[in-house]
Amino acid sequence: MRKRYFDHVATNPLDSRVFEAMMPYFTEDFGNPLSLYGLGTKAKEAIENARLQVALLINSKSSEIIFTSSGAEANNFAFRGIALARQNEGKHVIVSKMEHHSILNSARFLEKMGFAVTFLPVDKYGTVDPDTVKKSITKETTLISIIHASSEVGTIEPIKEIGRIAKEKGIVFHTDAVAAAGNIPVDVKELGVDLLSMAAHQFYGPKGAGALYVREGMRIVPLIYGGIQESGRRAGTENVPAIVGMGKAAELAKDEMADRVGQAKKLRDKLINGVSGIENVYLTGHPENRLPAHASFTVEFIEGEAMLLLLAAKGIYAASGSACSSKALKASPVLLSMGVPSNLAQGSIVFTLGKDNTEEDIDYLLSEFPQVIKRLREMSPYAKGWGMKGEGGECTVQK
Amino acid sequence: MRKRYFDHVATNPLDSRVFEAMMPYFTEDFGNPLSLYGLGTKAKEAIENARLQVALLINSKSSEIIFTSSGAEANNFAFRGIALARQNEGKHVIVSKMEHHSILNSARFLEKMGFAVTFLPVDKYGTVDPDTVKKSITKETTLISIIHASSEVGTIEPIKEIGRIAKEKGIVFHTDAVAAAGNIPVDVKELGVDLLSMAAHQFYGPKGAGALYVREGMRIVPLIYGGIQESGRRAGTENVPAIVGMGKAAELAKDEMADRVGQAKKLRDKLINGVSGIENVYLTGHPENRLPAHASFTVEFIEGEAMLLLLAAKGIYAASGSACSSKALKASPVLLSMGVPSNLAQGSIVFTLGKDNTEEDIDYLLSEFPQVIKRLREMSPYAKGWGMKGEGGECTVQK
Repeated sequence: MRKRYFDHVATNPLDSRVFEAMMPYFTEDFGNPLSLYGLGTKAKEAIENARLQVALLINSKSSEIIFTSSGAEANNFAFRGIALARQNEGKHVIVSKMEHHSILNSARFLEKMGFAVTFLPVDKYGTVDPDTVKKSITKETTLISIIHASSEVGTIEPIKEIGRIAKEKGIVFHTDAVAAAGNIPVDVKELGVDLLSMAAHQFYGPKGAGALYVREGMRIVPLIYGGIQESGRRAGTENVPAIVGMGKAAELAKDEMADRVGQAKKLRDKLINGVSGIENVYLTGHPENRLPAHASFTVEFIEGEAMLLLLAAKGIYAASGSACSSKALKASPVLLSMGVPSNLAQGSIVFTLGKDNTEEDIDYLLSEFPQVIKRLREMSPYAKGWGMKGEGGECTVQK
Repeated sequence: MRKRYFDHVATNPLDSRVFEAMMPYFTEDFGNPLSLYGLGTKAKEAIENARLQVALLINSKSSEIIFTSSGAEANNFAFRGIALARQNEGKHVIVSKMEHHSILNSARFLEKMGFAVTFLPVDKYGTVDPDTVKKSITKETTLISIIHASSEVGTIEPIKEIGRIAKEKGIVFHTDAVAAAGNIPVDVKELGVDLLSMAAHQFYGPKGAGALYVREGMRIVPLIYGGIQESGRRAGTENVPAIVGMGKAAELAKDEMADRVGQAKKLRDKLINGVSGIENVYLTGHPENRLPAHASFTVEFIEGEAMLLLLAAKGIYAASGSACSSKALKASPVLLSMGVPSNLAQGSIVFTLGKDNTEEDIDYLLSEFPQVIKRLREMSPYAKGWGMKGEGGECTVQK
């Protein structure tokens, strides 16, 4: 059976052109970039070339890019690195309830270290109100971190507006652009951000490569101490092939951005229109300000996990915003913070398109998905009024 | 010109059998291990298989292995993670002067956070005296971290003896086994360590994969917060191909350990005997208790960097224990702590052999190296008594 992949938010397949660019650094050009001889300098040059490619994607300087092993590492590094570097100026940081766990859990770590953290509420679309950001700023505030776009509901946040507020108040502003960078145009100068996280595998690059943009002159405490790699800001022997792959993927994303976005929007709108016709199925996230390849829904009376499994049996790979489906088995905090009732949040389903999806894929999805829903509702105790399992977002841990 | 690689301590070439094992996870099997459908479970199974392979290499349980992106990350994670987890029990940690910068700089970070750190001295071979460890323990001591084997001088430390002391006193014991694991037999039970760091690219695995052994039941604060990967102890989408590669490399290292060690010792001894015949050249590190593939020297009157460049011109790739040669341009703290005078420390050269080096490689090295030394000494202001540049270990930063 042909597999149709609608889970690009989980990870992207590696672009064959990217893999080709990486290949020599696995084999003949395996040197350590710190070594002085030819093998080392070749690896070093490859990394610097990739740094430029990534910089060009977000309109920064090369020297403002620090490579990491993942978006999560970039988020931890940015968030804790700035909070610690500025702790003598204040111990209050602001995040939104839309943040990824790498930010939320870093924030909880800071709380244990005596920091105060504001977790900003969001509206029903998951949008952060810049005014709320402004109002939550105190004299102690040193850092604001707001996600660029939600991987769970696709909503794009008003980063530029928040950036303006942060700048006015002299507060450092970080955005987690893991789901955005490489998928929509991202310009650090236009956005007015001081730090920005990204991950290569979100735009057809390899796993194991992420990057943090750190605006020139910004002080930051390292997360990983050690050697002099990345100008002493991130230690560890560089993952040369992965970094090279990230660079190539960034170059391709930049070159093909308009086409990819155009095609994704067309297919996404067809998908949303088709799915929205199904009874008791609701779009989550913002109807317009959303990632071009992102379509997310809640389906009443059934659970995300069951949908995923039945869809997979039909060769359709998707995700569920309910973390239950990703082996954590709790109702999605993001959906709950948007005011989605916990029973409905359990029925979350997320389709994220990629550059290789076709119109025929969408047709297939639209023909199969309603049947999956119908079948599950026929089996569902909820649909029959048997009450909710896991009311309040609790569910047992899957073994 | 044929290249002869004697810098396995910087990084190893990737074993083609390892690359082959990784390949499918770059292409068809690109799924995210957290995903519930087939692509995800396949990736998850691959990671669990690799975890077992790594566990078998060091005689641990699978559940005691946490994958990281590098040895440096594993060291940071272990060292700070334990110190923070145990800070209510005490704020004193012990390391040696032989440690890698990932430990030394993590220690300095802890000092800034109000911890006391003891930096243990070593003897002229770079060996830590277990009695000195014992004497430096206070009621406040919560963690001892001693390197298993030095990448710079090859000396193997008395880990087992120190492990016994740590256990007696109820102190957590970590060893940085980045240069040791996969290259000499390492058994965490026999060594009596609670945590152990390793890096795949040190035993023919890929860059971008490391691991930390954490003994069952040990509390540790994460370094990278986020999702539920690695049982919530290390977040970030797993670098599946690199992890698979680390597993395969661990399996091969275990299977071929005896042969590799035997061959390395034979070639190393030939190399050491040959080089030791050159005037004013001294072996660094322990003459017997050293890594089987490791031969390191100081060469009087000349600088490591110059040797590296001339050797490279002859197709011989080596390293210099002097950090000057690895672009940091300071005299090696490790050599200085062993009592090597700073002028001699500048003339450090390190040859590290690999499984693919041949006896003919050693013959070639032994025929070329004396000529390199002779030529440099003829040019050297030091040999002519012009005094030392960079006395006291200072040298300018290379641009």
